Amino acid sequence: MAKQPELDDFRVPYFEAGKKNGKFSLGNVDPAARPFSSGSKDADRARLSEIGAKLDIQQECLHAQQKRRVLLVLQGMDTSGKDGTIRAVFHEVDPLGLRIVPFKAPTATELAHDFLWRVHSQAPAAGELTVFNRSHYEDLLVPTVLGTLDAQGFEQRCRHIRQFEEMLADSGTTIVKCMLHISKDEQRVRLQARIDDPSKHWKFDVSDLDARKHWDKYQAVYRDALAATSTEYAPWYVVPADSKTHRNVMIAELLLRTFESLKLAYPPPKESLRGVRVA
Amino acid sequence: MAKQPELDDFRVPYFEAGKKNGKFSLGNVDPAARPFSSGSKDADRARLSEIGAKLDIQQECLHAQQKRRVLLVLQGMDTSGKDGTIRAVFHEVDPLGLRIVPFKAPTATELAHDFLWRVHSQAPAAGELTVFNRSHYEDLLVPTVLGTLDAQGFEQRCRHIRQFEEMLADSGTTIVKCMLHISKDEQRVRLQARIDDPSKHWKFDVSDLDARKHWDKYQAVYRDALAATSTEYAPWYVVPADSKTHRNVMIAELLLRTFESLKLAYPPPKESLRGVRVA
Repeated sequence: MAKQPELDDFRVPYFEAGKKNGKFSLGNVDPAARPFSSGSKDADRARLSEIGAKLDIQQECLHAQQKRRVLLVLQGMDTSGKDGTIRAVFHEVDPLGLRIVPFKAPTATELAHDFLWRVHSQAPAAGELTVFNRSHYEDLLVPTVLGTLDAQGFEQRCRHIRQFEEMLADSGTTIVKCMLHISKDEQRVRLQARIDDPSKHWKFDVSDLDARKHWDKYQAVYRDALAATSTEYAPWYVVPADSKTHRNVMIAELLLRTFESLKLAYPPPKESLRGVRVA
Repeated sequence: MAKQPELDDFRVPYFEAGKKNGKFSLGNVDPAARPFSSGSKDADRARLSEIGAKLDIQQECLHAQQKRRVLLVLQGMDTSGKDGTIRAVFHEVDPLGLRIVPFKAPTATELAHDFLWRVHSQAPAAGELTVFNRSHYEDLLVPTVLGTLDAQGFEQRCRHIRQFEEMLADSGTTIVKCMLHISKDEQRVRLQARIDDPSKHWKFDVSDLDARKHWDKYQAVYRDALAATSTEYAPWYVVPADSKTHRNVMIAELLLRTFESLKLAYPPPKESLRGVRVA
């Protein structure tokens, strides 16, 4: 009997000080793998709907309790499907309880502060489910690839991130981080499809192709960043994302499992309301 | 043949300086009316889905153009259905392009500023569709009913609101405001239902019943506030809301019409991308 896929098989091993070069390699995860897919798109969509309905209830409990916070971080190369994930995974979730925070290239004001400043201000509040569409990890990846952040600066930022995320976790925030892992070939197909459809041109610019030129560098920095910041309190998962339905189902499953681990429930009835008749 | 309902029949007449006491009265709008309902809940839901899909496209065009902004303001007594409206009307809209802003009782920091300060900071950015779940209108209603804002203060705040909204509109924000109009009797039924279901107790507190004691005062202040702040650039609509499906369909129709009036379209193709082959 084939082994059932486990989410934990896709979790990046936790960082251990002094063991910088662990065995983890992005190359060991096949972007085309579909371990959480049923093989049928229709069945996957039905499963996604089912998980979505459960996430909706979990989120309502989170909101009702007003205690814990949940943060989902999405990272990935261009066209890896961060936007599509948000649309698909949260279709059944009440928009009232969901906050999506997109991070673009930092503004002058943001750059005038430390790199975690703009991120901290967007952290989820009690009862909130917040999704970071890109995040503080861009500030590890981009400057390293561009050569403006050296190895020492990189290590320092990784440490700052671990400590920042630990503080959030200690303060009641449950963090789960997903790297949407696509192949270079799949990215080519997706970019070309956008170029060939003039109605999609607004989605990008020729300069967006620049990052692709540094594909191997990005993969290497992603590997180092994930290895240095996957922790028990803020684990990284590598999500095979060449298949969109697989990507969606896997992230939805992961988020649902994360919620279920919190054992949320609706608050108990209020004695003060017992027997009250509205006049 | 019966006259088809017109959204404009439910628009509060525009404010005219010096004509404070116009003919508009909330009492003339029946909360139980269902002019935009087909009479069948299923048909109403199907219609809502259809409008939702159109709103999704409109919102994507708004986002693609990154020029205009759209602000929907929802006000109404407790249980009038602000939360339910958001869930139902935006079910088909991509959460990426939607921002819901709930306004609660002001914090100490917020009270230390002018009443528009916290509202201004949440105004929609270019390309954004933002929904205010309650709004700066609470700062007209609550203190007036509690007696901490006198007639002169009320008039002054109404003027400040008109001028603030005019500035937003002049700067590219399309504003539409809905007062969800329920009857006192319908509110009784809805509050009682929450009290009788212990799993819903987290949604409120006995003190929430206090506002109901001032029902008539609230209706009177709502009437004055709407009359003084319905303008061509930020019109108020009174939405009969005893029927939830009617409320949802009417607000969705109104928002769709508002979007359509902007004549949004996807940006033109980019010459720089023509014939580009991704390597």
